[in-house]
Amino acid sequence: MSFNHREEHVDDQMLLIQANLDDMNPEWVSYIMDKLFDLGANDVFVVPIIMKRARPGIMLNVLLAADLLMEVEEVIFSETTTLGIRYMHASCHRLAREFEKVQTQWGPLTVKVGYHQGKLVQYAPEFKECEQVAKQYQVPLKRVYDEVRKQFMERQQNAPS
Amino acid sequence: MSFNHREEHVDDQMLLIQANLDDMNPEWVSYIMDKLFDLGANDVFVVPIIMKRARPGIMLNVLLAADLLMEVEEVIFSETTTLGIRYMHASCHRLAREFEKVQTQWGPLTVKVGYHQGKLVQYAPEFKECEQVAKQYQVPLKRVYDEVRKQFMERQQNAPS
Amino acid sequence: MSFNHREEHVDDQMLLIQANLDDMNPEWVSYIMDKLFDLGANDVFVVPIIMKRARPGIMLNVLLAADLLMEVEEVIFSETTTLGIRYMHASCHRLAREFEKVQTQWGPLTVKVGYHQGKLVQYAPEFKECEQVAKQYQVPLKRVYDEVRKQFMERQQNAPS
Amino acid sequence: MSFNHREEHVDDQMLLIQANLDDMNPEWVSYIMDKLFDLGANDVFVVPIIMKRARPGIMLNVLLAADLLMEVEEVIFSETTTLGIRYMHASCHRLAREFEKVQTQWGPLTVKVGYHQGKLVQYAPEFKECEQVAKQYQVPLKRVYDEVRKQFMERQQNAPS
Amino acid sequence: MSFNHREEHVDDQMLLIQANLDDMNPEWVSYIMDKLFDLGANDVFVVPIIMKRARPGIMLNVLLAADLLMEVEEVIFSETTTLGIRYMHASCHRLAREFEKVQTQWGPLTVKVGYHQGKLVQYAPEFKECEQVAKQYQVPLKRVYDEVRKQFMERQQNAPS
Amino acid sequence: MSFNHREEHVDDQMLLIQANLDDMNPEWVSYIMDKLFDLGANDVFVVPIIMKRARPGIMLNVLLAADLLMEVEEVIFSETTTLGIRYMHASCHRLAREFEKVQTQWGPLTVKVGYHQGKLVQYAPEFKECEQVAKQYQVPLKRVYDEVRKQFMERQQNAPS
Repeated sequence: MSFNHREEHVDDQMLLIQANLDDMNPEWVSYIMDKLFDLGANDVFVVPIIMKRARPGIMLNVLLAADLLMEVEEVIFSETTTLGIRYMHASCHRLAREFEKVQTQWGPLTVKVGYHQGKLVQYAPEFKECEQVAKQYQVPLKRVYDEVRKQFMERQQNAPS
Repeated sequence: MSFNHREEHVDDQMLLIQANLDDMNPEWVSYIMDKLFDLGANDVFVVPIIMKRARPGIMLNVLLAADLLMEVEEVIFSETTTLGIRYMHASCHRLAREFEKVQTQWGPLTVKVGYHQGKLVQYAPEFKECEQVAKQYQVPLKRVYDEVRKQFMERQQNAPS
Repeated sequence: MSFNHREEHVDDQMLLIQANLDDMNPEWVSYIMDKLFDLGANDVFVVPIIMKRARPGIMLNVLLAADLLMEVEEVIFSETTTLGIRYMHASCHRLAREFEKVQTQWGPLTVKVGYHQGKLVQYAPEFKECEQVAKQYQVPLKRVYDEVRKQFMERQQNAPS
Repeated sequence: MSFNHREEHVDDQMLLIQANLDDMNPEWVSYIMDKLFDLGANDVFVVPIIMKRARPGIMLNVLLAADLLMEVEEVIFSETTTLGIRYMHASCHRLAREFEKVQTQWGPLTVKVGYHQGKLVQYAPEFKECEQVAKQYQVPLKRVYDEVRKQFMERQQNAPS
Repeated sequence: MSFNHREEHVDDQMLLIQANLDDMNPEWVSYIMDKLFDLGANDVFVVPIIMKRARPGIMLNVLLAADLLMEVEEVIFSETTTLGIRYMHASCHRLAREFEKVQTQWGPLTVKVGYHQGKLVQYAPEFKECEQVAKQYQVPLKRVYDEVRKQFMERQQNAPS
Repeated sequence: MSFNHREEHVDDQMLLIQANLDDMNPEWVSYIMDKLFDLGANDVFVVPIIMKRARPGIMLNVLLAADLLMEVEEVIFSETTTLGIRYMHASCHRLAREFEKVQTQWGPLTVKVGYHQGKLVQYAPEFKECEQVAKQYQVPLKRVYDEVRKQFMERQQNAPS
């Protein structure tokens, strides 16, 4: 999810769509996921399931704002093989998020930070940037993550409170 | 699902029942699924899950019309080992469905067709018929599917619009 | 779950929380599950899922009474790496439960019994007790279970109805 | 597995075939499994896996005697969509198995019994028979299993040793 | 797998490496898979597993020619969190493969064809090309696949045998 | 695994045992895993699989030194419901491992370190110790991990090379 939220909030107008797919070529899944994210879905994921007659199906899950329902259904009906979908009402509680930069030996890198009731509870390096550094500088991706996390921790601990 | 819907529609009186099973013999699953389909459940599937103490449990999911709740619960409590179930309200959006026949070298075979807002979006050979042809004529099942799909596509492309 | 219910009942004030975790160390899962059970969650389990970019994530599920929402969220935001959670309203139908004792060669052991509309539908040996017997007497755990179940069945069949 | 083995033994001439399927209709799985069992495969099962580009694929596993390799490959190449398979040498240790009958209120039912070094270690009701009783007499399948297991246990305990 | 094989063959010098990961950030999986494919691995996939203490781990699987072992291990030890790997000898039976072109309304598209003992048994549209057509012409991906398959089937049926 | 290896090495005398369980109570899995680890198995894990008749089975996997085979089989046949197991020869490549201590605000904590060809490639806080600190000091477990990792990184970067 790429949304930036200045304020922690609860959104009660969300839907969780589920579609069970027992006859679809799994090659298409990444394409469909991308398309749903592009439409503005908040999350898209698949769950391996077992359907009747031992079919190893997949359940497509799409989390979305209720006003996107028609557009998302259009993609699901056009791109998957399902003859029906179901949806349930959901509330989303989202932390306040900020993007901060830390200095590393490979230049400044972004950390996504989450605040719950004003308290910092999450910080995560941005995957895409770290992946690019790992490729460009030929260092293990995990070392890039570790360095970004360490720099962020040190800055937090040295900050005047 | 064996329902025939002349009209695309949304049904807001559906329930999704879930029961987590951490102490049940997996041999019984197909029997229980069959029994729930026989009662009129719209869909039945299981999800592999991880429960406390590393238990590789399964979550039974049953999608049903709300007025079937008591009968479906009766089967779940009688046939599984659960001490409780939960359910959530769900809406089902179902495409208009029609069953059409195409001619093949093995005789006429059924295609299940789905329409979204009057537009054909799905077509799928009937598994049981194709399976029977594959057995009787000793041809690969995938070849039967391919032939049925090709015949249907050709008819569509040649149809006056 | 360790709750004792004298009466079968439906509780309509339940929530099912879900959090998708695509960047968390799986080592922490058992600790987090324990912590959520300690808070009073009715059930906690994880579902293996596939998220964007082929990430083999996990979906944490917590079933809880609605009035525990804030406390449970506090643990999820503090202990996992998620930037948001979603929840859906759920109804729980719980059987009447009683704990009974049966006599075995290893002493009295507990059976958890479930009643649906006054009819006995479930009976299950208590895992912890059976595990202890298996260790102490060096017998296979499955043999302990079998013996407990057999004793319970015999008592039921001999009971005046 | 439907084989009857009078003697416990180890068979070192077994192969485990694996085929990763990322573009196959899951509807075909049960048909393919049946066909492989009919050929004489000792076991057939599928494992949900995650392949490149987030594809929720399945890994078909077939355990077979080495001299069946060509026939089994023929079915896999004809019926699935794979362009290659792999296999590894395996040894199978199989218990001595016997089929015994117990008397129940629904007539005699079969128990599959397994012996390890002459000691009875397994006993399991036959699924198909129990399923038929459950349907015919309209009793829960789990009750049929329980009764068969109890009858078998009682006979064992009363047998002169 | 991007290899082109003129001749069907069996390669007995293959290894299947497995590494169980119970403490790794799942975000890194796609990067690691890509890196292993770039090295020349024949296949890379992950299997969701349950490890001790209810850990929802993943098992990384890499299929490779035995002479790549050291290079592949280097990547696994550098990029994942494992303290050890295991490997088993495997034989790969690969079909003869050819890439053919079919004409479609969106231009020529590639079909990957597999031959077993000289007989055509597989044909599959190339995902990347179909995905590009779907994006460029704004048609459902499944329709592109269907058209490519139909064109290929028609050409086969019309070919002089 | 709790083994300490001063030297990186390859052990070619390993076996991977697999047993497919389609009729076992999942409650027993943790007990069985513990028992197999106690016997000296190097790893034990379960894989969710789909067996015939839509059975959501589990495949038990045990990695062990070949000379433990008989003892491990004894446990599997006694404690699970399987009528047979299979095993394959495997080679294990294990990194050199050392346990080091770092100073933290909660006292000294252990880091498990892995070396590949003399180069440090892995370092991981010990779960049990971190869990105990998290409970005793009421801090999030992830914060304990982060602090241990940061202390270890700083020491490495300050060490004279």
